[in-house]
Amino acid sequence: MKNVIEALNWRYATKKYDPAKKLSAEQIETLLEAARLAPTSFGLQPIRLVNVTDPAIRAKLRTAAHGQSAVTDASHFVVFAATTDLGPKQVEEFTALVAATRNVPIESLADYNKMIGGTLASRTAEQNTDWAAKQAYIALGILLLAAAENEIDATPMEGFDAKQFTEILGLAKLGLTAVVAAAIGFRAEDDSYIKLTKVRFPKEKFIIGV
Amino acid sequence: MKNVIEALNWRYATKKYDPAKKLSAEQIETLLEAARLAPTSFGLQPIRLVNVTDPAIRAKLRTAAHGQSAVTDASHFVVFAATTDLGPKQVEEFTALVAATRNVPIESLADYNKMIGGTLASRTAEQNTDWAAKQAYIALGILLLAAAENEIDATPMEGFDAKQFTEILGLAKLGLTAVVAAAIGFRAEDDSYIKLTKVRFPKEKFIIGV
Repeated sequence: MKNVIEALNWRYATKKYDPAKKLSAEQIETLLEAARLAPTSFGLQPIRLVNVTDPAIRAKLRTAAHGQSAVTDASHFVVFAATTDLGPKQVEEFTALVAATRNVPIESLADYNKMIGGTLASRTAEQNTDWAAKQAYIALGILLLAAAENEIDATPMEGFDAKQFTEILGLAKLGLTAVVAAAIGFRAEDDSYIKLTKVRFPKEKFIIGV
Repeated sequence: MKNVIEALNWRYATKKYDPAKKLSAEQIETLLEAARLAPTSFGLQPIRLVNVTDPAIRAKLRTAAHGQSAVTDASHFVVFAATTDLGPKQVEEFTALVAATRNVPIESLADYNKMIGGTLASRTAEQNTDWAAKQAYIALGILLLAAAENEIDATPMEGFDAKQFTEILGLAKLGLTAVVAAAIGFRAEDDSYIKLTKVRFPKEKFIIGV
């Protein structure tokens, strides 16, 4: 396993994947599990991870993603989705999960429940979905680092038609909307992007000391 | 170093830090560097990381964060900030950085420059800042996993007055706005949250196979 800095310097947004190289069951399981364990605000987990294995669906997604080959050629393709219409229903569901997991009475969680509900109620539906979407990016970051540490390539992807993705994946009926995606697999040896030097603002510019 | 799943199961949103335990210079350097190396859409890095070391400023931030003790008691406290008013200025700056890093003529990047500029111009200033904020969450996720793997505690934090944080840190004059924060340090042994079982929706619910 690579250490954090080695891994982040090794990774790059892979453009061309080797379609013959697949993640092992254990490798993909680790990455999905890492996303599941990612923290979210309040612990509410207003996100889901769609693991798209149907080649026909991946072909449709590729069309809705400017034809990017990674969508179909990478070993795996996952879409992070955010919960829409956040409100009392999700708070109740979460509270029940906390009570069951920690073996405490639901009543003991009334204040926490009320605080989360109050926060959601203070915002518009659009603001809540946007807030949920941000939580998805935490999980994305964790998945990307986890992949790189295990020498698995991954490409974070915003360049797609989110409405079409949501439609193709049938997410609306699940109360979800597509937010961001990641292709996961192994780089093709002739991916011309491998050779490009990583571009980052220098430490002196990126870090602000106060 | 813990592996990914061990690390994510070990970590929790630490509430009470041991104020006597500090990260080594190497440890904080690794975490700041991990955030700097985090990927962002287009590679534009429309974010900065504020490392708040002045105790007086941390005291003010604590007040603007519902008095949460982690703000002052953790070894370190960082605030992720997003660039506001994204437009041609940032695209030019980024293009110059790419050209210098990869030793290519700026003219060779004209198409890429135009694509990024076109994307930014197609959205409102508010939408661009919100998009920049999402990139900060990728870096946050990476920092959280990197910390946990090194057995460093961290608490992601949205529960603060972002306007006050922006004001206290003097971010507006730098074209930045506070987005999300993280306390970083070592748990107090008597933090009652240590004992709580982690709550996550089960795999069958969190992962959607398509």
